[in-house]
Amino acid sequence: MNDSHEDRLARVALGRLGEPGDPRVSNLVSELGATRLYDHLAQQRDEGGLLDEVAARLATLDPEADLDRAARQGIRFVIPGDDEWPSQLDELDYCEALQDRAGAPLGLWARGPVRLNEVGNSIAVVGSRSATSYGADVAGELSARVVEKKVSVISGAAFGIDQAAHRGALAAGGGTIAVLACGVDRAYPAAHADLLRYIGEHGVVVSELAPGCAPTRLRFLARNRIIAGLARGSVVVEAAVRSGALNTANWTGRLNRFLMGVPGPVTSAPSAGVHQLIRTGAATLVTQAGEVLEVIGASGEALFEMPKAPEKARDRLSTRDAQVLDAVPVSKPAQADSIARTAGVGLVGARRSLDNLSGMGLVEVSQHGWRLSAVGRA
Amino acid sequence: MNDSHEDRLARVALGRLGEPGDPRVSNLVSELGATRLYDHLAQQRDEGGLLDEVAARLATLDPEADLDRAARQGIRFVIPGDDEWPSQLDELDYCEALQDRAGAPLGLWARGPVRLNEVGNSIAVVGSRSATSYGADVAGELSARVVEKKVSVISGAAFGIDQAAHRGALAAGGGTIAVLACGVDRAYPAAHADLLRYIGEHGVVVSELAPGCAPTRLRFLARNRIIAGLARGSVVVEAAVRSGALNTANWTGRLNRFLMGVPGPVTSAPSAGVHQLIRTGAATLVTQAGEVLEVIGASGEALFEMPKAPEKARDRLSTRDAQVLDAVPVSKPAQADSIARTAGVGLVGARRSLDNLSGMGLVEVSQHGWRLSAVGRA
Repeated sequence: MNDSHEDRLARVALGRLGEPGDPRVSNLVSELGATRLYDHLAQQRDEGGLLDEVAARLATLDPEADLDRAARQGIRFVIPGDDEWPSQLDELDYCEALQDRAGAPLGLWARGPVRLNEVGNSIAVVGSRSATSYGADVAGELSARVVEKKVSVISGAAFGIDQAAHRGALAAGGGTIAVLACGVDRAYPAAHADLLRYIGEHGVVVSELAPGCAPTRLRFLARNRIIAGLARGSVVVEAAVRSGALNTANWTGRLNRFLMGVPGPVTSAPSAGVHQLIRTGAATLVTQAGEVLEVIGASGEALFEMPKAPEKARDRLSTRDAQVLDAVPVSKPAQADSIARTAGVGLVGARRSLDNLSGMGLVEVSQHGWRLSAVGRA
Repeated sequence: MNDSHEDRLARVALGRLGEPGDPRVSNLVSELGATRLYDHLAQQRDEGGLLDEVAARLATLDPEADLDRAARQGIRFVIPGDDEWPSQLDELDYCEALQDRAGAPLGLWARGPVRLNEVGNSIAVVGSRSATSYGADVAGELSARVVEKKVSVISGAAFGIDQAAHRGALAAGGGTIAVLACGVDRAYPAAHADLLRYIGEHGVVVSELAPGCAPTRLRFLARNRIIAGLARGSVVVEAAVRSGALNTANWTGRLNRFLMGVPGPVTSAPSAGVHQLIRTGAATLVTQAGEVLEVIGASGEALFEMPKAPEKARDRLSTRDAQVLDAVPVSKPAQADSIARTAGVGLVGARRSLDNLSGMGLVEVSQHGWRLSAVGRA
């Protein structure tokens, strides 16, 4: 048995002993290494008060069997040091705890063809489970557009925004990563069994929880740090004032990753949490994929052009013509001499300009004089 | 004839000679004073190349008659030095030109009972003429809520957002100020004749243009600086990427006043300009009147409380109960001993907590074990 395999077994075992994101475990692993920590505990040697709590679970462990069973289900366990390890997760070790969760995961159980070390160029798209159709449409569209630029979409496979994000990415033929709060062999929510199967065939489903583990509230909180930790930036699309998505947003901020929010109607409760993030400066407002790519600096080509209105005839006028046009009344017609006075130009010049402007359809003349046309008013 | 009356006449006359916001005129007025500048021009003495342009208009001036005629229409001309002068406008003199408009107005023609020196505590609510019903609703509601806190609402009496803002303020019985790009005796747009009459009876209609003057594009641009200059801050509710409201926003920024924007669906073109202002950091996102009052610091009482979700039963749990609750599965039930292991607590303590949680309706038990209730999952 080589060191790496021993390390892997220890990490499987420690994962079974503690709850994900237990800061005591990750601190001890940083200090002693996984193998030594597991050895100590297996020898009933207490470490940081951990032994008491894990004693009951210690007896039931068989990490080798866990790995074998997982392998037969097409599930691999990726740990630090593996080629496939997504090293951006290591930053979680330097990140303050949130709701008593902290630290990089001991390892990630993964099912699916996408390799975890290849998801560095990725964004998380998260939001409310009770999304509106507006929110779901925007999340799906945004996800489809970013995967076209080879950026992967990470989410949590929940109802609402998560689902829309995964589906948008898959529809555009791009990679998508579902991070679960239960084993990757389980479908939670059950209604997403097909979606999770499809992601397992075309993207990758990951979890720090061993196969078979059930979701708990604590595990959802721990899971959110993995979503934030894998992604270069997170986009929140609809989140009520008290929403799990804001927990992911919080992790994103702690990790100094890019936090973005999609606004919505101020009359829509599912947008209130996002508006708060933008208002307080925690998140940057984004309205489309181009802006997201610009924020995360995905690539030089992503530099986003500010939307411009189509150029108007007015933009191409000579200074004199523009000056005269500005003096033409909007509604009640005026004679050329009055327009000339208003514009501060001579009468001959004004008449010439009015003819030019009329030719461009910007002004119209009647027996009462000149005024702007519908085009000129636009 | 006293100095003040002479100054008033000179300002009426100069207003007739140049276009509003002509930076040459306001510079010369700052340098020479209005009376002297007008005298020089009347004596055909050129000042800054102005004479050539204004010669045609000089012949037609009769400022005394202008004032008399205005007074008979219930219109007053308020100038710097008057008690009623809104001195916040003087800051326009220190503000860089925008689209070749600049400077404080020579004076303001006003019609209506609200005194201009009393509109310091005010916001401008501006936006698209082609507003959506969402935008109009939000503008009206916002305006009604701020006037309840004795903050006046300034706008431009145009279709769309302007109209909704004035109406919201009037409906709540508050002061509202319409700043026009034509004489205050005119109704532009004509469809707003009733609205403008009503504002003239309960608020105030103002313009730097003399009665009778027609609106031109240039005058709209000049007008926007007055709206921004009167208000403590401006709120943009819906503005397409190329909208006049963004011109007012620009002035607000130049004046270092508070610029705010109300977001909307990213799929709505009339919100795109507002989103751009927020995204670039030019404007603060606001969603309701309380936030607007907080931004402009209207009064101590305006300090806005962050919206919070209602407190949940979960928030009042003991640490132990919370720990156990976090270990209860969301869907597939688990036995008490498994929950105790997950939670890292003893079996006896876990059973006691489960009973407590069950009493609070957070968990439910069946023959298969414990899981979260609908309330616990919420």
